[in-house]
Amino acid sequence: MSEENLMKEIVSLLKRRGFVYPSSEIYGGFGASYDYGPLGIEMANNIKNLWRTDVIRAHSQVVETDGAIILNPRTWEASGHLGSGFADSLVECQKCHHRFKEEEVEDRRCPDCGGTTTEPRSYNLMMKTFIGPLESTQNQAYLRPETCQSIFLDFRLVADSMRLKLPFGIAQIGKSFRNEINPKNFLYRQREFEQMEMEWFTVESETDKWFEYWKERRLKWYLDLGLNKENLRLFEVPKSEMAHYARRVVDVEYKFPFGWHEIEGIHNRGDFDLSNHSQHSGRELNYSDNDHPEAFYPHVIETSAGVGRLMLAFICDAYQKVSGGRGEQSQRSEEVVMQLSSRLAPIEVAVLPLMKKPELTNKAKEIFEQLKFSFRIQYDETGSIGRRYRRQDEIGTPLAVTIDYDSLEQNDVTVRDRISMKQTRIAIEKLPLVLRQFLNESQFNES
Amino acid sequence: MSEENLMKEIVSLLKRRGFVYPSSEIYGGFGASYDYGPLGIEMANNIKNLWRTDVIRAHSQVVETDGAIILNPRTWEASGHLGSGFADSLVECQKCHHRFKEEEVEDRRCPDCGGTTTEPRSYNLMMKTFIGPLESTQNQAYLRPETCQSIFLDFRLVADSMRLKLPFGIAQIGKSFRNEINPKNFLYRQREFEQMEMEWFTVESETDKWFEYWKERRLKWYLDLGLNKENLRLFEVPKSEMAHYARRVVDVEYKFPFGWHEIEGIHNRGDFDLSNHSQHSGRELNYSDNDHPEAFYPHVIETSAGVGRLMLAFICDAYQKVSGGRGEQSQRSEEVVMQLSSRLAPIEVAVLPLMKKPELTNKAKEIFEQLKFSFRIQYDETGSIGRRYRRQDEIGTPLAVTIDYDSLEQNDVTVRDRISMKQTRIAIEKLPLVLRQFLNESQFNES
Repeated sequence: MSEENLMKEIVSLLKRRGFVYPSSEIYGGFGASYDYGPLGIEMANNIKNLWRTDVIRAHSQVVETDGAIILNPRTWEASGHLGSGFADSLVECQKCHHRFKEEEVEDRRCPDCGGTTTEPRSYNLMMKTFIGPLESTQNQAYLRPETCQSIFLDFRLVADSMRLKLPFGIAQIGKSFRNEINPKNFLYRQREFEQMEMEWFTVESETDKWFEYWKERRLKWYLDLGLNKENLRLFEVPKSEMAHYARRVVDVEYKFPFGWHEIEGIHNRGDFDLSNHSQHSGRELNYSDNDHPEAFYPHVIETSAGVGRLMLAFICDAYQKVSGGRGEQSQRSEEVVMQLSSRLAPIEVAVLPLMKKPELTNKAKEIFEQLKFSFRIQYDETGSIGRRYRRQDEIGTPLAVTIDYDSLEQNDVTVRDRISMKQTRIAIEKLPLVLRQFLNESQFNES
Repeated sequence: MSEENLMKEIVSLLKRRGFVYPSSEIYGGFGASYDYGPLGIEMANNIKNLWRTDVIRAHSQVVETDGAIILNPRTWEASGHLGSGFADSLVECQKCHHRFKEEEVEDRRCPDCGGTTTEPRSYNLMMKTFIGPLESTQNQAYLRPETCQSIFLDFRLVADSMRLKLPFGIAQIGKSFRNEINPKNFLYRQREFEQMEMEWFTVESETDKWFEYWKERRLKWYLDLGLNKENLRLFEVPKSEMAHYARRVVDVEYKFPFGWHEIEGIHNRGDFDLSNHSQHSGRELNYSDNDHPEAFYPHVIETSAGVGRLMLAFICDAYQKVSGGRGEQSQRSEEVVMQLSSRLAPIEVAVLPLMKKPELTNKAKEIFEQLKFSFRIQYDETGSIGRRYRRQDEIGTPLAVTIDYDSLEQNDVTVRDRISMKQTRIAIEKLPLVLRQFLNESQFNES
């Protein structure tokens, strides 16, 4: 199957099964903008919580903040985003007035109509808005193009209120906005996207050590969550391609159907941000303590990942087609199974009455009620049981609980495992315990 | 104490202790914009998760979505937000050019300089931005002023992909933006704020029944989480003050230090949204199934709350000053205790070595490591133990674990309860179980 067709299949599955919808679809969509459906939001929350566990909770010196999307616009002077470092160079066709990135145009000819194009003009990627009743330059503000800047602005407030001592980290999850000329590749490049960033503050002499620590730690996280080793690599970004604030950049790259692309960046930002904001604001964002009596600007190692990119990578990696079907009832010529880690799967446990008969559905609903606050759970009673196993395979559900006529007499159910398709009879009273145990074991097998 | 001073004290405590910082403070702030610190984000997450549990997980027919902040701008024509229903009427002083809401100005005189003001002009509350390289009317788009619209746009996609049958609900948590002329009262009215909304779709004949159901359910949620009954009331909003889409509105109001104000609205939106979007988009957002063979527009009961407002209400309600101190060591003339529900408190368990001695801090750190993935937890070793109890009281921590010299010999610790200040000796091996039990019991006592 071609890579393009594979992506089409995945996009269609994710829409049909409630992971990701094209945003504003009834109005013809809106650029490369997507809404999460119920399963997408569960999976996104799993990714965020697993990141929180690894980056924040596992480190007593990392705390989390959540800053405003629209910051004081002077922020972007100090950060360099209002300068040429965060701008695309565009040309305009003098005939059809379409605009293109400079590098997309050969010989100054318009790719659409062949007309002559203008000289390139710099075009900033930040989205503009206005605060207050006047639409004037003074009232201009920007949607943040990266989440990390509020971490630098609040550096002193966070360090003081949380009594932090170097080295320490400040993490943040939130939306950023970039006015991309060519958003593309589905969730990979969107104008509106969610970032998970962590800024680790340390002394300059220890930046190399911490860079290694966080690079290895983040890489391990992807492997632990089941990404195939051969689809992951580290890429040392050459100096000429680094962002304006960076001293060293290593990208974690994933092999998508559309090629190798960055899913996370590890950055040495030096003291660029704290020193620049100190200078621009006149408020010293330096640091001192008993061990460092002389105030200085801490250096920063940053880890920066995108929730949508990660979700797409995990899904592409887990997506499998089994020709001839998986061998259970109602097989089709080709069946899809998403071999997702149980920690990432939107649904942990499906509850399925064997048939849509009141005695079975009532019992199944009882079990659903018993489990619903302890597991990510879905109840499904429509269609043949084989068909419903297929539906759960498609969305990556690790366990399915089936209620049949024996269940009514023996008070037990069948638990089906997605990976092995093995079925085990379990007493209903033991179900919560056994399901949790099965989920923990499958975690262990993944990594 | 005056109400103004009380608010000042609360704002100062929340900043000092890492709940809420003024955003962009080093640049002189930026309007009424705030960042959550580490404790604020924990508390906000608690509020969101408790809302999710009650509104979504407890109802098998309610699912969650997460739509884009910038939707196709035609959305706001259909929703009525581009019309006069979502605009403030402003006048401008012809002398100093300051602008005011019409109702703030008497006799057409400027409140600032006394100059004559212009005729009132309509001013839309939506924040504008531009998508793509051109800043023209065609490229104009808006930051959503309410989260619910993407729920209506995606109505068919969600219902189909999740196989939902009436009645059902679609919920969403996310940021909205309003270009308020006078944002005020701290977290209460911000330009950028987080909403928790749920749209319940049903047949018209059952809207009254469901309106009552959700109104009572939501009111009970606040009482269960410990809000004082005398600070809560329902307010039936008169027709003349309803939003343009509403057929009936009941506000849940809380008695803040600055007066009674809405913290949640229960709205009957009729079929306004689905019928209008169908008409504007040409895509039918109607509904039919076996029980309703004739397609129709479902009617909508909405519950709409703001995370920041709720956090402020819970904090104001829990804030207590004890003159003469609480009676444990190092009392001051006045001590603050935040009597928060343990389910809302940012930290559940504080781990405190009695003194900063290696044998005690090592043991305390061991216990911290043992508990850190199971509880919201904080380690603190600086200052006298009495002072550290005060700090935990200020932020509403229900339980403190103290490690003393007996702990080293007997392998047990003291667990202190914030409300009763009672101290109980507990074996370290039983600690996780007993702490969870104490937290569950304190939940029970609150409601």
